[in-house]
Amino acid sequence: MASVKVFGSPTSAEVARVLTCLFEKEIEFQLIRVDNYKGQRRLPEYLKLQPFGQALTFEDGKLTLVDSREICRHLADKYADQGNRDLLGSGTLERASIEQWLQTEAQNFDPPSSALVFNLAFAPLLRLDQDWEVVEQSMKKLGKVLDIYERRLDETDFLAGNKFTLADLSHLPNAHRLVADDKCRSLFKSRKKVYRWWEAISSRPSWKRVVRMQQEPPHIV
Amino acid sequence: MASVKVFGSPTSAEVARVLTCLFEKEIEFQLIRVDNYKGQRRLPEYLKLQPFGQALTFEDGKLTLVDSREICRHLADKYADQGNRDLLGSGTLERASIEQWLQTEAQNFDPPSSALVFNLAFAPLLRLDQDWEVVEQSMKKLGKVLDIYERRLDETDFLAGNKFTLADLSHLPNAHRLVADDKCRSLFKSRKKVYRWWEAISSRPSWKRVVRMQQEPPHIV
Repeated sequence: MASVKVFGSPTSAEVARVLTCLFEKEIEFQLIRVDNYKGQRRLPEYLKLQPFGQALTFEDGKLTLVDSREICRHLADKYADQGNRDLLGSGTLERASIEQWLQTEAQNFDPPSSALVFNLAFAPLLRLDQDWEVVEQSMKKLGKVLDIYERRLDETDFLAGNKFTLADLSHLPNAHRLVADDKCRSLFKSRKKVYRWWEAISSRPSWKRVVRMQQEPPHIV
Repeated sequence: MASVKVFGSPTSAEVARVLTCLFEKEIEFQLIRVDNYKGQRRLPEYLKLQPFGQALTFEDGKLTLVDSREICRHLADKYADQGNRDLLGSGTLERASIEQWLQTEAQNFDPPSSALVFNLAFAPLLRLDQDWEVVEQSMKKLGKVLDIYERRLDETDFLAGNKFTLADLSHLPNAHRLVADDKCRSLFKSRKKVYRWWEAISSRPSWKRVVRMQQEPPHIV
């Protein structure tokens, strides 16, 4: 029995981040999903929880964590010798650069991109009003973040250097939803280096696997 | 939060039986699925467990049950006033007839049909040897059972009378796999009343819902 357990739905950005890391590290784990049904319908709790990131619990033996980036750090540290060994770098300097870009993702990329994913992808499904003012502001903010990325990615293949690391991985769930959105795609496509980077990170087998898992729910709703 | 919880995969015949009953009774419930992953592959535990029916646990408040037919009886009794009210009949005589055919399903239909489902549907997926002697013997046994059904269904629309009850419902998971199998389909198709009955019970929305849930796993394997 695997000692690593993930409780949540792959459609959650937080869960998707952790699953990608588990696949990169080739770690054996159990995914536990809870679906609520009433009559013959599945209730959309899995969507309601998604935008607020409350849908993730992680256990590794006696350790319990709920923050997706913290979980990814834990996995890269504890399982350093298996799967992808580059996720947190191999020395202090590499790790410092990775941490810096992980922070940039959490503090600068995540807030506007989560606001966009919620308003553009989830609000219509939940029949909630879309806040167009928030959409406009978030697109502007995200544009400025991606301008910085564009300059950085002119120097290196990936954010923290020339290898795919947790700093890149952490962007995948929200970036995927934004590139799939008609309104937001150009934020990425119009920036040549950013788009090259997006194509590189989104073509990783670990991420493709998660996308297939995310596409599952619509088949049975 | 629903007090009724089902732990297991819809691909298990035992779980499928219980889900169909829950849908018929329009009961709110939680389905908890556990999938094991290693590297990027999902491990086929859900298939290994299926033929032996060990993959089901059911909770209703403080009550825990593991036998699918017992769970269906419990649901039809406790939730008598909601959803389909005919599943266990409305009087002692009706209930006696339903119980008699439920026993026939469990003791006569289930053993040969489970052996066939295992050898024809699951063994190839698990790369296990198919036991053709068991297949031949089980087809003969099942044929004799269905001969009795054919005569019964000449008198009534459903096994216990003219209404769809637990006695019919209980046949759905295995019968579905057999009708889908090239070798076994004729066991049903060659018996006119049995086939009419099969078409009636398999077209119930509750069962169609379960079939859609069963078809889900292949999308992500």
